[in-house]
Amino acid sequence: MTVAPVTLTAVPGIPPIGPRDDVAAILVAALVAAAMTPASGDVLVVAQKIVSKAEGRIVDLNGVTPSARARELAAKVDKDPRLVELILRESSEVVAHKPGVLVVAHKLGFVLANAGIDRSNVAPPSDSGPDSGPDSEPVLLLPVDPNASAAALKARLDDHFGAALGVVVSDSVGRAWRNGITGIALGAAGLPALRDLIGRTDLFGRRLEVTQTGFADEIAGAASLVMGQADEGLPAVLVSGLSWREPAADATALLRPKDQDLFR
Amino acid sequence: MTVAPVTLTAVPGIPPIGPRDDVAAILVAALVAAAMTPASGDVLVVAQKIVSKAEGRIVDLNGVTPSARARELAAKVDKDPRLVELILRESSEVVAHKPGVLVVAHKLGFVLANAGIDRSNVAPPSDSGPDSGPDSEPVLLLPVDPNASAAALKARLDDHFGAALGVVVSDSVGRAWRNGITGIALGAAGLPALRDLIGRTDLFGRRLEVTQTGFADEIAGAASLVMGQADEGLPAVLVSGLSWREPAADATALLRPKDQDLFR
Repeated sequence: MTVAPVTLTAVPGIPPIGPRDDVAAILVAALVAAAMTPASGDVLVVAQKIVSKAEGRIVDLNGVTPSARARELAAKVDKDPRLVELILRESSEVVAHKPGVLVVAHKLGFVLANAGIDRSNVAPPSDSGPDSGPDSEPVLLLPVDPNASAAALKARLDDHFGAALGVVVSDSVGRAWRNGITGIALGAAGLPALRDLIGRTDLFGRRLEVTQTGFADEIAGAASLVMGQADEGLPAVLVSGLSWREPAADATALLRPKDQDLFR
Repeated sequence: MTVAPVTLTAVPGIPPIGPRDDVAAILVAALVAAAMTPASGDVLVVAQKIVSKAEGRIVDLNGVTPSARARELAAKVDKDPRLVELILRESSEVVAHKPGVLVVAHKLGFVLANAGIDRSNVAPPSDSGPDSGPDSEPVLLLPVDPNASAAALKARLDDHFGAALGVVVSDSVGRAWRNGITGIALGAAGLPALRDLIGRTDLFGRRLEVTQTGFADEIAGAASLVMGQADEGLPAVLVSGLSWREPAADATALLRPKDQDLFR
């Protein structure tokens, strides 16, 4: 018995994305140009950055006036007060900080450093839209609603390819206790972001004690292996060969509610 | 331009593993039988369970006498006092607990629930070795030294296949802030468990702010997608198509030292 492999294939040829670009159309064109034809059950993992850029989630730090609270916190964490102001605006809670590190609960529910705000791979001023100027300092916020972004991409891709796809909007974040960032799912559509193994048995017929797996997070981490974090510029990966039997559920299933969380 | 895919292929036909089994020989035989020929740069991900079983890391709870501290903690977390005794013996520190949950720092440096001790997929008494009896309650501890286990497997596999492979010993663990377990690397050999992107630049030529990725953890999580957590019984996955340029470093690189950790 041989089991069909799972394959992770980067979608080549995706150009730099800017505000108001139609990411779905760009992804379809890139898939078609590469002769990659997604089939039902395939999952397209899309980097948060291109989703956020298309949604115009770029802010020029020069237009941000830090509050007293932001200035005070910025001094403690040794970060730009304007960036800290944006982080606080995006967040519901500061979870932990030390010099160089600011971990918050994003209003969307994610616990992550800097509210997911990114200064890398944000286009220089000329590409950043009407608010930019020669001295602008653009940063990129998370998508407004990553699950909705995933669902919208899925609808367009499903329609074009005549298939029922999964879509994951991914980001790479740090973790408690372990070094190194890894991919996680900010948003998901068309697949069970969290898989529930309740009722399944182990090899010896006993009920499993641990019952839930972070399916969409493992998919995002796997895709991250081929996306590259730096200059490769491969922001979409097609994952084929997965299977599941649970109903689709979006990535909010992966968020541990604060009242069940021992670490904030 | 098309990028070669990364493929994740389960190794079929691996039998149940017991104490003193030669896991390397069993993996070689299974790979050969499936006509899977690992090449240099391929990574074999091996589930912790079969490594631990072969190392005889099975303990019968009936032979464990809980200390007063274990009994007191067991009452707080609603767990078997004998299991809690074993968890404490394997650990350097209790990190957090509530009813049903006991998170510790394992002596090997991992922060995880129950010190990684597992009651599922441990063979019934007849297969558990000389200490077992009809009423035995076997549990499985982590390998003694997962990096050494990975290195030993790598040496045997490299020798057989005439190639320079990577080996990851994986487990699935829970996380702070997010629901669902995901695969991580307990041990690694022949690859950089943590990849350091210092000095690389983003698409626009600026230095990246986030510089390290949990490469071996992402590989373990990817493999977990095809291993199955329950009755599939596929404890080894061959990963092909990865590339790296950093020197090999084992999975201790993934452990955040306590004095740098905000969450314990």
